[in-house]
Amino acid sequence: MGDAAMSPKLTGEILRQLRQAMRNCKYFSEPIQAYIIPSGDAHQSEYIAPCDCRREYISGFNGSAGTAIVTEQHAAMWTDGRYFLQANHCLCNETPSQEDWLISVLPENSKVGVDPWIIAADQWKNMSKALISAGHCLVAVQHNLIDVVWPDRPERPSTQLRTLGLEYTGTSWQDKVTMLRAKMTERKIGWFVATALDEIAWLFNLRGADIEYNPVFFAYAIVGMNTIRLFVDLKRLSHPVLRDHLQLDAPIKPELSIQTFPYESVYTELQAICAALGPKDKVWICDKASCALTQVIPKAHRTPIPYTPLCLAKAVKNATEIQGMKMAHIKDAVALCELFAWLEKEIPKSTVTEISAADKAEELRSQQKDFVGLSFPTISSVGPNGAIIHYRPLPETNRTLTLNEVYLIDSGAQYVDGTTDVTRTVHFGTPTAFEKECFTYVLKGHIAVSAAVFPNGTKGHLLDSFARAALWESGLDYLHGTGHGVGCFLNVHEGPCGISYKTFADEPLEAGMIVSDEPGYYEDGSFGIRLENVVLVIPTKPKYNYRNRGSLTFEPLTLVPIQVKMMNTELLTKKERDWVNDYHRKCREVVGAELERQGRKEALEWLIRETQPIV
Amino acid sequence: MGDAAMSPKLTGEILRQLRQAMRNCKYFSEPIQAYIIPSGDAHQSEYIAPCDCRREYISGFNGSAGTAIVTEQHAAMWTDGRYFLQANHCLCNETPSQEDWLISVLPENSKVGVDPWIIAADQWKNMSKALISAGHCLVAVQHNLIDVVWPDRPERPSTQLRTLGLEYTGTSWQDKVTMLRAKMTERKIGWFVATALDEIAWLFNLRGADIEYNPVFFAYAIVGMNTIRLFVDLKRLSHPVLRDHLQLDAPIKPELSIQTFPYESVYTELQAICAALGPKDKVWICDKASCALTQVIPKAHRTPIPYTPLCLAKAVKNATEIQGMKMAHIKDAVALCELFAWLEKEIPKSTVTEISAADKAEELRSQQKDFVGLSFPTISSVGPNGAIIHYRPLPETNRTLTLNEVYLIDSGAQYVDGTTDVTRTVHFGTPTAFEKECFTYVLKGHIAVSAAVFPNGTKGHLLDSFARAALWESGLDYLHGTGHGVGCFLNVHEGPCGISYKTFADEPLEAGMIVSDEPGYYEDGSFGIRLENVVLVIPTKPKYNYRNRGSLTFEPLTLVPIQVKMMNTELLTKKERDWVNDYHRKCREVVGAELERQGRKEALEWLIRETQPIV
Repeated sequence: MGDAAMSPKLTGEILRQLRQAMRNCKYFSEPIQAYIIPSGDAHQSEYIAPCDCRREYISGFNGSAGTAIVTEQHAAMWTDGRYFLQANHCLCNETPSQEDWLISVLPENSKVGVDPWIIAADQWKNMSKALISAGHCLVAVQHNLIDVVWPDRPERPSTQLRTLGLEYTGTSWQDKVTMLRAKMTERKIGWFVATALDEIAWLFNLRGADIEYNPVFFAYAIVGMNTIRLFVDLKRLSHPVLRDHLQLDAPIKPELSIQTFPYESVYTELQAICAALGPKDKVWICDKASCALTQVIPKAHRTPIPYTPLCLAKAVKNATEIQGMKMAHIKDAVALCELFAWLEKEIPKSTVTEISAADKAEELRSQQKDFVGLSFPTISSVGPNGAIIHYRPLPETNRTLTLNEVYLIDSGAQYVDGTTDVTRTVHFGTPTAFEKECFTYVLKGHIAVSAAVFPNGTKGHLLDSFARAALWESGLDYLHGTGHGVGCFLNVHEGPCGISYKTFADEPLEAGMIVSDEPGYYEDGSFGIRLENVVLVIPTKPKYNYRNRGSLTFEPLTLVPIQVKMMNTELLTKKERDWVNDYHRKCREVVGAELERQGRKEALEWLIRETQPIV
Repeated sequence: MGDAAMSPKLTGEILRQLRQAMRNCKYFSEPIQAYIIPSGDAHQSEYIAPCDCRREYISGFNGSAGTAIVTEQHAAMWTDGRYFLQANHCLCNETPSQEDWLISVLPENSKVGVDPWIIAADQWKNMSKALISAGHCLVAVQHNLIDVVWPDRPERPSTQLRTLGLEYTGTSWQDKVTMLRAKMTERKIGWFVATALDEIAWLFNLRGADIEYNPVFFAYAIVGMNTIRLFVDLKRLSHPVLRDHLQLDAPIKPELSIQTFPYESVYTELQAICAALGPKDKVWICDKASCALTQVIPKAHRTPIPYTPLCLAKAVKNATEIQGMKMAHIKDAVALCELFAWLEKEIPKSTVTEISAADKAEELRSQQKDFVGLSFPTISSVGPNGAIIHYRPLPETNRTLTLNEVYLIDSGAQYVDGTTDVTRTVHFGTPTAFEKECFTYVLKGHIAVSAAVFPNGTKGHLLDSFARAALWESGLDYLHGTGHGVGCFLNVHEGPCGISYKTFADEPLEAGMIVSDEPGYYEDGSFGIRLENVVLVIPTKPKYNYRNRGSLTFEPLTLVPIQVKMMNTELLTKKERDWVNDYHRKCREVVGAELERQGRKEALEWLIRETQPIV
């Protein structure tokens, strides 16, 4: 907290300029006493393009979540729990809410500015309410003040768009629009405004590369009962393949004809639509959409929703998507088997570092068919670095892999047929009894979730404690959720389902949803353990069927061996040992066949050795 | 739903009269088109006095939760999930929300009336918002319209008050007031309005008998930093013991002097207090308090809270209260051991019914020291009646206990030293394999919660799935929560903690809190199983202590054998069998000693037989 939180090399001069801008009436009628810099972009993306890294620019903090606030006297930053340890290095421990902090430092009747495009409507509402009740007010500053003091701000990316055919998507964009309209009809909604980039990419069966790790592109879409408006840099739509995919030149049906507009014109176009609304017309928009766009829709017509119909439909993967995800995970497992076989050979030479291991993993993945890129920055961490939950190796923290320390690698890739995300924790020498004990508790938690049977309609948060019970019993825990939704050649984190103690607002799990199962344990200053598979929700038929509700369980899509050396098998029950053996048998069968096909002998030998049954 | 939901004998004429009152401008400026009849009283009590049973009077439905709504054309009733099966007998299956139903049946621009004293402030807010958005409005009708059509409505009870000394409470009311004021100072709150009857009874170390099963009395209290106002039928305060307890005639310190006022004057007195508030003065009131009293406090001064400081303090029992609860549970176990020994003898004669068994349980409890009454109506249910979760035997449903059907008894008592609540499910002949299997899953769930170790700060809802895992694995479940807070010689259901999948708003479990652990399984039309202990949250020291958070677990206060005959011990793990044996050893030691002391030989023999170790 305080100026000390800022990276000293960057922010002294920039802060001075920002404070000058806060007093400069060119941007508003009266000076503002504080300026909020959220970490997001206008689409509330989790990962953002360089041009949108304003909070990082002003604060020097590169975590993916966090808000900076600058007042005339102070500057402060908030991060989420995932960065607890990392932030501890530079921030103080007591954390008041942003509202409380602002109220404690602001002079009376202050004006607090924020860019309405990068604050979500629900956040604006809460912040505004708190400030007003303390005699201040929240002001929408249309001109972003960081952009004012950021001379070499990068341009907004406009990468080439990729069309996805039915062999990858299973459903045409026309059918997706029709399904969306059916939902709108059901709820008597006339218009739907899509602002989340992954929803727009999913809807139109298009992918881009505007944001690293996320195959999305900057766009908005507005769907009415008879019209479809797509807002995107129009230069991107010139290629014939794309024009054909979107049927821009010869739409088959008028109601499936897409009108295209420049990205920036969404505001004025939505204004025009709203001006023509009938008295009972309703417009759907996500409550996490930007304040700016949300407020264009008059309150009487606005129907904010926590999850859009696209978000809900996208989460339930169809048979084609599931098949693609399975293929992607097999290829990904091939690359990881090769990586671990290679690491075993190389580590004794003391030449492998966290960074070079991550690079090797990327190189091996890139050899696989339809590889597009990584799905998030690889967490490659040795010993104490493993205890930093969202660690990313940097030259100044880079450690060498040895025979003496635990190695944790959390990595994943985008393939045209699917997205992967897998964490394995391994030891190349002899783990300590404590390391093995903790690993085994984490494994027990992982299995408890993966093998859980639960009724249809169960929300993921009800499964979170299953992942912790073994750790809790020994007085241990981990300070992050247990799982997140995973997109299909889309964002590695997606809603509306997940497995976490932190939310009650998740949607029930349904067959076809895909989530991660990733309990962990982190011993500060010593080591980190995490064990992550991506798992598919599938129907299952237990002995009984209470009230005909039906039951669900999970099928692991990730097929990478779990290191037996790290297990204290005496702590495992028979059922848990059987699970491990079944899982390893499947890894050997499915991934072994692919390694064989690809002629990757050493990795195949490694796989066979690592999947010996345990007793 | 619809008029069919009403008990035909009662409601035809009463409904006609109520609809007349809805048109009678004596009660409001314009007629109302609908009238809402919530089930509660002015204190949002769960159990209510006969004079407050307005919803039951108008609808004939005697469930403890539920709302009736009467319009010019329709009448409808809502119940909570616990009455699912019971309500199914008379209500239709599809259940729209009250708001949606009203909006679907009301003519345009309707006025919907409700008594503002018996609707909670938060419910009023939600209902009002929904009605306004559909073009209707919610109107506070000061004169309760059911009272208008209820000629022989009983008087409000005014039973004798009982004072509790330090030997029962552990903390004087003066110290409780001082602690409350410390919380108020901490949050800069000038006034606190207490409306929940159990909170007022707890604060003043007084008990009454105004509401059956709940040792409370009708009162309000307003605590300022220097004043204490108690609103209660003043006749009740004439006894010297009471005047002395409350120091009414000779207060030691002026700020601990209690001013007494008639019960009804709370409204005008609160108005007077609010009229004299300074611009920054804040008044605490529970957000579940009545709309009428809440709205007396001007919005700028009102600080609604989900749980009051009294509710939170009351939930954490002190050493004296814990000791009292333990004593009460031992006495209660004595009575139940006697009951089961007696049932074993009597059932073969076919003379015992659900009602007579319940009466016998009450008789046996009443022989124990400091017995005051039951803590809720005994659920005594045989065979298919056991599947009705909140069944209460009535002459027309009364079944005979036999050697062929499962018997479920959920019962409890108020003793001066504590409150009990225990459920046992037993078979006096030979249970079927399916009954045993289901019982064993329920037992596994009960043990999973009772033996759970979890970090300090964990909310009870995170433990709910532990109770279900074994049932889920076989495709079974139960449609109620797993546990509720239990008062100490107070309400058998109390907040703010519990164990349920239904809420995220519970407060974290703390050492000293007391909750029930009561998973179940209900096979409609056949049998019901529930296994309930009251358990105390206690600190525990597992092997490790992650981030020095400390760990908690439960200690059973209920010490009544769990029928081994109903268990399929092959389905139990070693750990679960050990738990059963440890539990039974404790029952035998603790309750055995008391049975011995009371010279209750037959029950002692029964206890010894029923607590043989299992292998």
